[in-house]
Amino acid sequence: MHETLYFEDVHVGQRFESAKRVITVDEIKRFASEFDPQPFHLDEEAAAKSLFGALAASGWHTAALTMRLLVDSTAPMSGGVVGAGVEIAWTRPVRVGDELQVVSEILEARESRSKPDRGIITLRSETRNQKGETVQVLTSRIVMPRRETKG
Amino acid sequence: MHETLYFEDVHVGQRFESAKRVITVDEIKRFASEFDPQPFHLDEEAAAKSLFGALAASGWHTAALTMRLLVDSTAPMSGGVVGAGVEIAWTRPVRVGDELQVVSEILEARESRSKPDRGIITLRSETRNQKGETVQVLTSRIVMPRRETKG
Repeated sequence: MHETLYFEDVHVGQRFESAKRVITVDEIKRFASEFDPQPFHLDEEAAAKSLFGALAASGWHTAALTMRLLVDSTAPMSGGVVGAGVEIAWTRPVRVGDELQVVSEILEARESRSKPDRGIITLRSETRNQKGETVQVLTSRIVMPRRETKG
Repeated sequence: MHETLYFEDVHVGQRFESAKRVITVDEIKRFASEFDPQPFHLDEEAAAKSLFGALAASGWHTAALTMRLLVDSTAPMSGGVVGAGVEIAWTRPVRVGDELQVVSEILEARESRSKPDRGIITLRSETRNQKGETVQVLTSRIVMPRRETKG
């Protein structure tokens, strides 16, 4: 277990590196069957004829796996990793057997003006494959409680 | 089956309404176990003590279900619904038993300058619960092929 992180514990430029995780063909097809049943995520032949050129994971699958790697590998944020909003760019297809890793950096950290018990950080998380190529960039705004003020 | 949509078939202001789908407690916990294992998505008691106040679905689960409703319910985009990038705002928790529906509108549709065989649309998709409250706003930029020019 990591130690819980509060707003006071983080700073701009701080980096987190996740564990690595391989994505299998079964996982790609199972996720797609449930949430994104388009031919290029389900079937090798159809994918070969699509703009992907070969079977590719759903971008939502990449996003969900990125969240899992973030939750497992970074120090737990106090109150949890609760995003108010995110932006995602999918920059390259995720293929069968790709080994994914998430490298994150805090871009901004500011105190809340209206609520002095918390701060808001902006976290940029690059999901990379085993060649070091970026497959997804996730930018999240995350609310972080401050430590309790001791009276 | 719906008819396939090409770039020429869509226009700004066009709206799509998805089917409705109830989210169950088992689905919420199963998704969270796999992709977002934080206590407020997994355990009623822990959730009651968290900022959510009660069990809530992972935002990534809401996003994935939104994709499923979009894929099932709107006319298939030629080439598939392939997003180059998205923004997501989670505006309200998704609770056990909520019935979700996605209402989408095309905000922008423009021809690609560099690639005359395609256009890019901006689609705004509101995911709403059974009370009509918006739980998520997804804004997607989607590449859409044009119909083949007949020689």
